[in-house]
Amino acid sequence: MAVIEPAARRFLASQPVAHLATASATGAPHVMPVCFGLVGDTAYVAIDEKPKTDDVLRLRRLRNIAANPTVALVADRYDDHDWSRLAWVLLRGTARIVVPPGDEHALALVCLRDKYPQYRAMALEARPVIAIDVARSTSWGALA
Amino acid sequence: MAVIEPAARRFLASQPVAHLATASATGAPHVMPVCFGLVGDTAYVAIDEKPKTDDVLRLRRLRNIAANPTVALVADRYDDHDWSRLAWVLLRGTARIVVPPGDEHALALVCLRDKYPQYRAMALEARPVIAIDVARSTSWGALA
Repeated sequence: MAVIEPAARRFLASQPVAHLATASATGAPHVMPVCFGLVGDTAYVAIDEKPKTDDVLRLRRLRNIAANPTVALVADRYDDHDWSRLAWVLLRGTARIVVPPGDEHALALVCLRDKYPQYRAMALEARPVIAIDVARSTSWGALA
Repeated sequence: MAVIEPAARRFLASQPVAHLATASATGAPHVMPVCFGLVGDTAYVAIDEKPKTDDVLRLRRLRNIAANPTVALVADRYDDHDWSRLAWVLLRGTARIVVPPGDEHALALVCLRDKYPQYRAMALEARPVIAIDVARSTSWGALA
């Protein structure tokens, strides 16, 4: 049975940005806006920055995931003028770093490039992606 | 000397929503969209939901803060059509729960109601606010 229900799934598909929270082994949280795609109950997040060093695995969120794979991802809609339209979907689960090459990495790129035309021109093949296996989905507000 | 630099401060003032990441004592992260105000190097976040129980302190982010006060707050701008406009400011620091009545609680409400007209009609006087004493500010992208 799917963890993420249809209304939440539709809401997530309509949202270009989510926010990924990770925490270090000592419990210091970190949060970043991310682009994401969903395949079943797994969310995929590309690593699209150029880190200051060549070593992409040194990015804080990847170091946190390696030390502590429990993560949270929230997508939400804000409306300055009408707070009755506010809504969010919060996904909690376990993150994995998916290193290329491989079928799951290829699938993640197809999913992300389908949602984000900008990714089609980016050389993401050599970069890891984050896979989040969603264990729990909660939502609030006017999802439709 | 201020932790948050002028360009970051202006960007934060222009953003209606930030995302607050907390973590439980065991390091499980949580993240929620929040409205926020800034006074010096302290960010204030109102508790504006009606929790399911009467006890607002049972909200996950408040329980996390009580167990582990290290938090992260990110404000960011997304532009579907022009990724050169993306930008974020990430604040990291220590959260405190400010319980009314008191000068700091009153100051936080003034600050939040100045930024959010919706808060002027809400009975926030009896609810705690979250104060985040910012120890570190980092930013990326086109803040201006």
